[in-house]
Amino acid sequence: MLKNSDTFIGCNSDYKDSKIVMFGAPFDGTTSYRPGTRFASKAIRSESFSIETYSPYFDLDLEQTKVFDYGDLEFPFGNTQKVIDIIQNFTSDILTDNKIPFMIGGEHLVTLGAFKSVLEKYNDLFLIHFDAHTDLRDNYLGEKLSHSTVIRRCQELVGDKRIFQFGIRSGEKEEFEFGFTHNYFQKFNFKGIENIKEIVKDKPVYITLDLDVLDPSEFPGTGTPEAGGVSFKDLIQAFKHLSGLNIVAADVNELSPPLDVSGISTALACKVVRELLIVTSKL
Amino acid sequence: MLKNSDTFIGCNSDYKDSKIVMFGAPFDGTTSYRPGTRFASKAIRSESFSIETYSPYFDLDLEQTKVFDYGDLEFPFGNTQKVIDIIQNFTSDILTDNKIPFMIGGEHLVTLGAFKSVLEKYNDLFLIHFDAHTDLRDNYLGEKLSHSTVIRRCQELVGDKRIFQFGIRSGEKEEFEFGFTHNYFQKFNFKGIENIKEIVKDKPVYITLDLDVLDPSEFPGTGTPEAGGVSFKDLIQAFKHLSGLNIVAADVNELSPPLDVSGISTALACKVVRELLIVTSKL
Amino acid sequence: MLKNSDTFIGCNSDYKDSKIVMFGAPFDGTTSYRPGTRFASKAIRSESFSIETYSPYFDLDLEQTKVFDYGDLEFPFGNTQKVIDIIQNFTSDILTDNKIPFMIGGEHLVTLGAFKSVLEKYNDLFLIHFDAHTDLRDNYLGEKLSHSTVIRRCQELVGDKRIFQFGIRSGEKEEFEFGFTHNYFQKFNFKGIENIKEIVKDKPVYITLDLDVLDPSEFPGTGTPEAGGVSFKDLIQAFKHLSGLNIVAADVNELSPPLDVSGISTALACKVVRELLIVTSKL
Amino acid sequence: MLKNSDTFIGCNSDYKDSKIVMFGAPFDGTTSYRPGTRFASKAIRSESFSIETYSPYFDLDLEQTKVFDYGDLEFPFGNTQKVIDIIQNFTSDILTDNKIPFMIGGEHLVTLGAFKSVLEKYNDLFLIHFDAHTDLRDNYLGEKLSHSTVIRRCQELVGDKRIFQFGIRSGEKEEFEFGFTHNYFQKFNFKGIENIKEIVKDKPVYITLDLDVLDPSEFPGTGTPEAGGVSFKDLIQAFKHLSGLNIVAADVNELSPPLDVSGISTALACKVVRELLIVTSKL
Amino acid sequence: MLKNSDTFIGCNSDYKDSKIVMFGAPFDGTTSYRPGTRFASKAIRSESFSIETYSPYFDLDLEQTKVFDYGDLEFPFGNTQKVIDIIQNFTSDILTDNKIPFMIGGEHLVTLGAFKSVLEKYNDLFLIHFDAHTDLRDNYLGEKLSHSTVIRRCQELVGDKRIFQFGIRSGEKEEFEFGFTHNYFQKFNFKGIENIKEIVKDKPVYITLDLDVLDPSEFPGTGTPEAGGVSFKDLIQAFKHLSGLNIVAADVNELSPPLDVSGISTALACKVVRELLIVTSKL
Amino acid sequence: MLKNSDTFIGCNSDYKDSKIVMFGAPFDGTTSYRPGTRFASKAIRSESFSIETYSPYFDLDLEQTKVFDYGDLEFPFGNTQKVIDIIQNFTSDILTDNKIPFMIGGEHLVTLGAFKSVLEKYNDLFLIHFDAHTDLRDNYLGEKLSHSTVIRRCQELVGDKRIFQFGIRSGEKEEFEFGFTHNYFQKFNFKGIENIKEIVKDKPVYITLDLDVLDPSEFPGTGTPEAGGVSFKDLIQAFKHLSGLNIVAADVNELSPPLDVSGISTALACKVVRELLIVTSKL
Repeated sequence: MLKNSDTFIGCNSDYKDSKIVMFGAPFDGTTSYRPGTRFASKAIRSESFSIETYSPYFDLDLEQTKVFDYGDLEFPFGNTQKVIDIIQNFTSDILTDNKIPFMIGGEHLVTLGAFKSVLEKYNDLFLIHFDAHTDLRDNYLGEKLSHSTVIRRCQELVGDKRIFQFGIRSGEKEEFEFGFTHNYFQKFNFKGIENIKEIVKDKPVYITLDLDVLDPSEFPGTGTPEAGGVSFKDLIQAFKHLSGLNIVAADVNELSPPLDVSGISTALACKVVRELLIVTSKL
Repeated sequence: MLKNSDTFIGCNSDYKDSKIVMFGAPFDGTTSYRPGTRFASKAIRSESFSIETYSPYFDLDLEQTKVFDYGDLEFPFGNTQKVIDIIQNFTSDILTDNKIPFMIGGEHLVTLGAFKSVLEKYNDLFLIHFDAHTDLRDNYLGEKLSHSTVIRRCQELVGDKRIFQFGIRSGEKEEFEFGFTHNYFQKFNFKGIENIKEIVKDKPVYITLDLDVLDPSEFPGTGTPEAGGVSFKDLIQAFKHLSGLNIVAADVNELSPPLDVSGISTALACKVVRELLIVTSKL
Repeated sequence: MLKNSDTFIGCNSDYKDSKIVMFGAPFDGTTSYRPGTRFASKAIRSESFSIETYSPYFDLDLEQTKVFDYGDLEFPFGNTQKVIDIIQNFTSDILTDNKIPFMIGGEHLVTLGAFKSVLEKYNDLFLIHFDAHTDLRDNYLGEKLSHSTVIRRCQELVGDKRIFQFGIRSGEKEEFEFGFTHNYFQKFNFKGIENIKEIVKDKPVYITLDLDVLDPSEFPGTGTPEAGGVSFKDLIQAFKHLSGLNIVAADVNELSPPLDVSGISTALACKVVRELLIVTSKL
Repeated sequence: MLKNSDTFIGCNSDYKDSKIVMFGAPFDGTTSYRPGTRFASKAIRSESFSIETYSPYFDLDLEQTKVFDYGDLEFPFGNTQKVIDIIQNFTSDILTDNKIPFMIGGEHLVTLGAFKSVLEKYNDLFLIHFDAHTDLRDNYLGEKLSHSTVIRRCQELVGDKRIFQFGIRSGEKEEFEFGFTHNYFQKFNFKGIENIKEIVKDKPVYITLDLDVLDPSEFPGTGTPEAGGVSFKDLIQAFKHLSGLNIVAADVNELSPPLDVSGISTALACKVVRELLIVTSKL
Repeated sequence: MLKNSDTFIGCNSDYKDSKIVMFGAPFDGTTSYRPGTRFASKAIRSESFSIETYSPYFDLDLEQTKVFDYGDLEFPFGNTQKVIDIIQNFTSDILTDNKIPFMIGGEHLVTLGAFKSVLEKYNDLFLIHFDAHTDLRDNYLGEKLSHSTVIRRCQELVGDKRIFQFGIRSGEKEEFEFGFTHNYFQKFNFKGIENIKEIVKDKPVYITLDLDVLDPSEFPGTGTPEAGGVSFKDLIQAFKHLSGLNIVAADVNELSPPLDVSGISTALACKVVRELLIVTSKL
Repeated sequence: MLKNSDTFIGCNSDYKDSKIVMFGAPFDGTTSYRPGTRFASKAIRSESFSIETYSPYFDLDLEQTKVFDYGDLEFPFGNTQKVIDIIQNFTSDILTDNKIPFMIGGEHLVTLGAFKSVLEKYNDLFLIHFDAHTDLRDNYLGEKLSHSTVIRRCQELVGDKRIFQFGIRSGEKEEFEFGFTHNYFQKFNFKGIENIKEIVKDKPVYITLDLDVLDPSEFPGTGTPEAGGVSFKDLIQAFKHLSGLNIVAADVNELSPPLDVSGISTALACKVVRELLIVTSKL
């Protein structure tokens, strides 16, 4: 693979030497309300040069991690299944080379493609899910593939008590009930995240972060902003509890740059990517 | 074929069967600085389809309340007194039918029209007022009818110690003094709201919510944003303390959609309306 | 009390009495660059109350036409073929009742659904196409269904010399050549439109108007603005040459309201809809 | 009168020495749709420093005219009649001192206040009106004072064949008929303006310019943009035909700065003010 | 000095009688990413009329302080050194007259000009610095004068343990180390500010406030927003700890109005200026 | 030189094989009013993928020209002279390799750097200048280097009757007089451009295009928009008259993407770059 010249700041590793492979999945084809997440990965790369590579939270520098930034996948808009297949295949290639896929969405449905191929490799996989929404609908207007059904699809693949959900504050009553019954499910905040290591131990973990878990005051640039969310500081604390887990894949989704003209959402997303890369790299 | 129709989500009751009647009062004629609240009620209805009808805060669903959404009143712009009269008359009709008026402003002055007719029916009425501003000026550039004088006008009608004011953080020194002397007056936050039931008991209550009581970070879409406000989470807590009161009327004011291009203010307002409808419906 | 309802201004006919049936097709799922046309039909209806029903160009009033405004179709985002089928079926129902379908897009691909059912009824159909783009690609990244292939798909169905294209100024060299060979094809402007009646005579005509045929100065609110377009005045002149044709269906596409914060594009689109309804109604 | 320190560029004359008195009338209280013209006069002054004082169209410099810029009148929002009275009284003071009032709106209704006092002084007054709208309604939702009735009110005061209307392209059928019958009325453009001197001769003239006469492509920053308007170049040509008339008052209205984020409307308005001041000053 | 007519609200003192002299330094010439702070001082003055002069936090009124608002300095864009010289000379004049300079930036580099002349007068000066960034780079792309080097330049002038830094959360590792070694340095928040009086005693203090110390949710209008900041309420608490210090100069920087279309940043900045003026005036 | 991976569409030539070298000069340090042109070159490259490589105006394809796109130069903000030097040196390198420099600004001052080195190589150089402004000031607030003095500086270097200026409509009276006396100077439009070949013959020509020559309706995204400009169609006609000249260098300046949220200015600039590359490549 050739290196993309316009990478995320500090992600200058060659593919061969890299431990983590970052790539963009600019798809928002099932977004029912306000689209725009297709522009996220490009915006995050370009804006990343306004932040520093040094994290004062972990006292580590992004340049110590070994990240190769591939650039964006190319998708045929209008064909949802094909998009998921492209992501699945690309992720499989990364895993075959024993590297960690780190995907930048796009809408949350892109997680399904990556999750499938990670689960294929690691059949004892756990999924940690931060989100404002349950994403547990069975279908949306009859469609099984939607950004509001994605965790339900993952649940069908991975089974009961393998998914941790945090920060959830929007959904149908049935979805909340499904979450409480089948998953580890925490409304509104990160309560209980400090106990996750006891359950997961050294099993492989996939982290999927829907940025709308954050309060819209800090992160207005998303399609369905939900008041009453967590703060960036809360998220950093949560990351500290994930530090040390056996993270084998991660993704960050649902930034919609056109919806935030001030640019604070994209700037925050860059920092979240920096911190999550540091957590994932297990330095 | 039926013609299309646009109510607030989950407010599909017929007038006859309804318990609460929601209506818009799209007036901002006395707004001295940035107008735009005239667009609030339409924006709230349209945006409401991006939220769910289920409240995870009260574990209740909007579809259980019986709300009829009338749509918007029509006003002659430029004639302030006539606007207040139209609101007063419309509210009287609702009260005559033993239903609860639930008004979406518009600027805060619209409260005066509704308050007058509610007070006519319930002469032992209490007013609970959430706001960043005292709204206690005697006049504004000589005008008695203004969005910065509205609570003063209500106070003249209802008398001393009948009004509770919370969250106030802007006004002239004299207004603060007036508030402390004549009303129950709480600067900055909701401290003391837990004691309100002891004072009010089962007396009829009018709730008027100026959304600018919220911090501008969470609610930027308002004409005079005042830093240092309460959060959505604080507001939900306050609502829990109002739950169980004998609410006979309510209004939600001062959203100005054109001032918030990200749309987070309108989305938050929708949730506030959902939660306040649930509180008002006494399920 | 009647529930509020929101049609395009002056389109208050009952379905039964109507001659024209207007409906929205809020789909932009194959838009490869900037989405947003899904919001067009709602925006046009709401904004229509800022224009008058009287046309000083034709000295006719919209209230004389008999238009029923159905509202918007509901689509499963992410499933392109199903969207086209829904449009096709809905249009067939209208045609069965001997009414004229008048569709508001959405992206240009929506035309394919309506065109199919109109062609089924009228096998000697002509298509008149105003656009900045040829829309004559065979496929877009392998996909046959795309807003840049829609006229090619129509051409395959209707055959040579049945399509008139005007105002075209963007495409691949091969597309221009295809247009010149197989269709009546006019670059940049409406030259030759005055001769169209001689060719078409009283045969049935479908008019498809991609609003980006207009210059971006007058119509900035579209996903791929192309400098060097026609003016609103030119378009009105063109409409005068269409007046008197046997129009059996029409659509207006590609307004993207989020891209034009000033609102002039939506306001212009309302006028275009008014004028085209008047032309279509053959008063 | 004291000089306002933040004047329009090149308008530095003392009141005593001045020939023209510019003042702002920041009122938009009867605007039925999108308000915002209240911000026009301040925006025009501030933006004026981005243009030059020299007009290449008339080869004259604004610094040669003797203009005193008073600043803005202060209005009680919510009381329409009082606003008109304040304008009328202020204009009378200027006329008493034998100076030419030059008002910057605000919505078009402000013209009524100034027109009344000018007509009082000059009873053989002509009114020249550039606008997209007829402004000839008898009332708007029952209100006689509205920005859509203002020319009708003037017409009642000044009588038949004293008003010239140009550029009109929106109104009810009845308004167009009224215009044709009672005024000199030109749809769409400035045709016939070259003959105006023959009719008016050296009689006193009031010029009222609603900037929405311009095409929305050049002037998007206005509340009800109407496609199909005149260009800035057309307007300059029209001004050349007004040059030499006995202009005794003028106003420029309906710029709404919040509606044009690019700022081209305000910049254009500054140039229009510069050119009209030069025409009015009869250098 | 002549009074600027368009002053900050409540700052109406004559120069002679004034204790504090406010002035604008509208420069953003070294801003490497998004410029726009050049518009801050004008925006703050204009917006200040939407707040009250009364502070409910200190129960004091701005009208009790004696502030002269000079208006803005004029700068030759493109010549950085000259800009700093102009600021330095102007500040010296104020100090010579025994008044307190209170500067509104502009980018943070403007502090260097003022700091130099204050240090000349008070050689035992302390600097209190609130910021998201260390501003401790030695150079930026080879340039010694930059908004990211300004505190390093001050440090070279004033020496070790004379600078207090609070709220810092972005910089290179080396900058953090430099801060910890040479200054009083507090990451993320205001911890320790309660002890500042013990160290500083009655020595002269310069306060420099980079508004980006605030969380971007409350203050989105700045060029490099950094998630994880302090709140307005935190800042007010910090001000309470500064109250009573011997403040001899202050500045407020880095508001960029074009980046915050909602206007909440400018509104907040106005309140910060009001509160800091009250603290500085030692009433 | 290494190829920049994110090039302008169709500009994929290797440096060695290239005939034209495109590069960005993202500088706006002397812009006195609204900055933002520093973002132009990146925006143009990114947006270029929304246009086609085929020009229907010249019936040629960009892929036939041999253009190497270097990417952007890096500048030390705050040091104007150094910026000009960097541009001058880089341009010299290109000329030494017998290639044609094609620069994307930035503000217009960047032309000075390139012009100097081109004049060094071709001492019989002509300059063709399209602009709304004369750019003929001797200095701006004392500074010789400014975007409003750049053509005056060029004129001093190249002498009388070597510069053609078209489309000019703003400046001081003295600047217009200077232009008429010393240059070929055409107000408002391109009149006379058809005779340029007779004067220039096969002498080397530098084309500098300030995009604000275009009317603000078509090109709102620029710092000082000037009503009354030329259209894109006019510009294409002008380009046809330049076709066949011995063009040895060209630049395109003054797009400010943040000022045009609709994006039509950037889209238009892409087309202008495409067409001017085709003209410059002399296919």
